[in-house]
Parts: sequence; structure tokens; C-alpha cells
Amino acid sequence: MPVKTLEDLFIHSLSDVYSAEKQLTKALPKMARAASSEELKTLFTAHLEETQGQVERIDQVVEASGLKLKRIKCAAMEGLVEESQETIEEVEKGPVLDAGLIAAAQKVEHYEIATYGTLCALAKTLGMDKRIIELLQDTLAEEKGADQKLSALAAAQVNETAVAA
Amino acid sequence: MPVKTLEDLFIHSLSDVYSAEKQLTKALPKMARAASSEELKTLFTAHLEETQGQVERIDQVVEASGLKLKRIKCAAMEGLVEESQETIEEVEKGPVLDAGLIAAAQKVEHYEIATYGTLCALAKTLGMDKRIIELLQDTLAEEKGADQKLSALAAAQVNETAVAA
Repeated sequence: MPVKTLEDLFIHSLSDVYSAEKQLTKALPKMARAASSEELKTLFTAHLEETQGQVERIDQVVEASGLKLKRIKCAAMEGLVEESQETIEEVEKGPVLDAGLIAAAQKVEHYEIATYGTLCALAKTLGMDKRIIELLQDTLAEEKGADQKLSALAAAQVNETAVAA
Repeated sequence: MPVKTLEDLFIHSLSDVYSAEKQLTKALPKMARAASSEELKTLFTAHLEETQGQVERIDQVVEASGLKLKRIKCAAMEGLVEESQETIEEVEKGPVLDAGLIAAAQKVEHYEIATYGTLCALAKTLGMDKRIIELLQDTLAEEKGADQKLSALAAAQVNETAVAA
């Protein structure tokens, strides 16, 4: 389906992030297993649950809007997940790997922050139902929260432990 | 070079974003040519100049730190640039393409925001020279500024023009 209207662009972005979230639900358990810090494990596990909820929110947006998702694979998330996988393979388990996992996860979160930011803006411009905009805003807020928690954990614990390792 | 210490992780992240910035200096002129809105063209052209300055800042960080960059190609930026190229090819020139270009550019900016955020945090933990931290913070502020300008342009003009198209 070619993109001709702003609604097409909305559907394309939503389909893209649907693929991204699905990929992330597979990557996060591996990241949690690779982490040494208990706090980081907990953070990844909690964000996995959030991510599953975000997939459900996309389903709700689809239902409420009557739009149909396209089957696409988000290439950018594929690259980001690959990068986190490489980090796991290349860095020995321990505090430096934890710092690398946080860096990789923050890139993922920022990809999603950009995408949901666009989706919120497009939904408003398209005059979509208030409920749809709220669903997208809820997820955007969660992604920003996950990013901030990762920054805080790096600052409070992981980076200091890694530099001393 | 394997990543064993937090300094290795810093070098890896810096080398990654160096590759990302270099790729972006090639992509931005194409995005400026593809844009229809004069304001968006100007924004892309101005950010090209900023990006060239950011490459120079990385050179200054390398010089000040005495570290040596690795030759790596940032796969994530490759994916993001590819996505913007696909948008240019698939969407007819006009306001909807402009909205798509803004979406693609904001993903790029967020990738860089995440990476420079990590670099600033690592540089502080590693006790690097104040000048190095400032160089990284200056670029981080520019990336955040570019993202905000794109959001503002989408909200003020591009999205409304696209929905009316």
C-alpha cells in the first residue's frame, strides 16, 4: 500500500512500531538474562510487561480507528536489537556489559519515543477520537519513563560499578 | 578491539556516532532536496551545518582524550537513513512527504540523543576532562534542539497542510 495521505502515513508508522514492539518482546528476556545487576534485570522484566501492554494498546487503536495494519518488519528495530545482541556476545558478563545493555536499551526507547511522538501528532491532526490519542500518549509516557529509569540506574549504580571493575 | 572496560565502551559509542554523523551528512542534502516546505528545507540545511560541526567536535574529543576511534559502520543509522530514502522514493513530493521526512528525521535525532546522552554519562563516570564533557553536552543540546524544531514545524505547518492536501 503506497503512502498517499496523512492517514496512510499514520497507518505506516503504527504498523512499523507494532513490528518494533513485537521484536522487543523477544529481545527483552535475553537482555534481562544477560544483565548482572538485579535492579537492571528487574527493569528489563518490568519493561517487558509494559511492552506487552503497548502491543495490546496498538490492537485497541486499530479496533477504535477501524484502520488496518500493514505487515511490515521494522528494519530500524531489527538493527537496534542486533546491536544489543552483539553487545551481549562481545562483552563479558558483568558491570561493563550492564552499562552496554543500558546504552542499547536507551537507543531502543528513543526510537519508540520518536515514533509515538509522531503518532500522537498525526492522530491529533487527523482529528482522531480522544480515546485513540490517549492510548498513544499513555505509551509515549511509558517509553519516556523507561528511558529515565535507565538513565537513573546508570548514574546511581551501574556506571560507577563498571568503572571500578 | 573487544569491549572490556568502560573506556572501551566509550570509544565504541563514540566511533559508532562518528559513523552515524558521517552517514547523516550524506543523507541530509537529499532530504532537503526532497522537502517542499521552504521552512523544512532550511531546517535540514541548517542541521547539515550543525552535523558537520558535530563531526569536528568528535575530532576534538579524540584529540583531547588521546583515544583512538575504531573503524565501524553504525548499522542502526544505516537502517534509519534507508528508511528516509524509502520514504522519499515511495511518497509523492508534497506535504505528506514533508510529514514523512520529519518523522524519519526525528528518529535520527532520537538515536543521536540516546547516544550522546550515554557518552556524556560515561565521560563523567570516567572522570574525563571538563572540556570533553562540554563538547559532548553541546552536541547533545543541538540534537535536542533539532528534534524540537522538527516537532514545532510539524505542529505549526506541515501536518495541517498535509491533512488538507
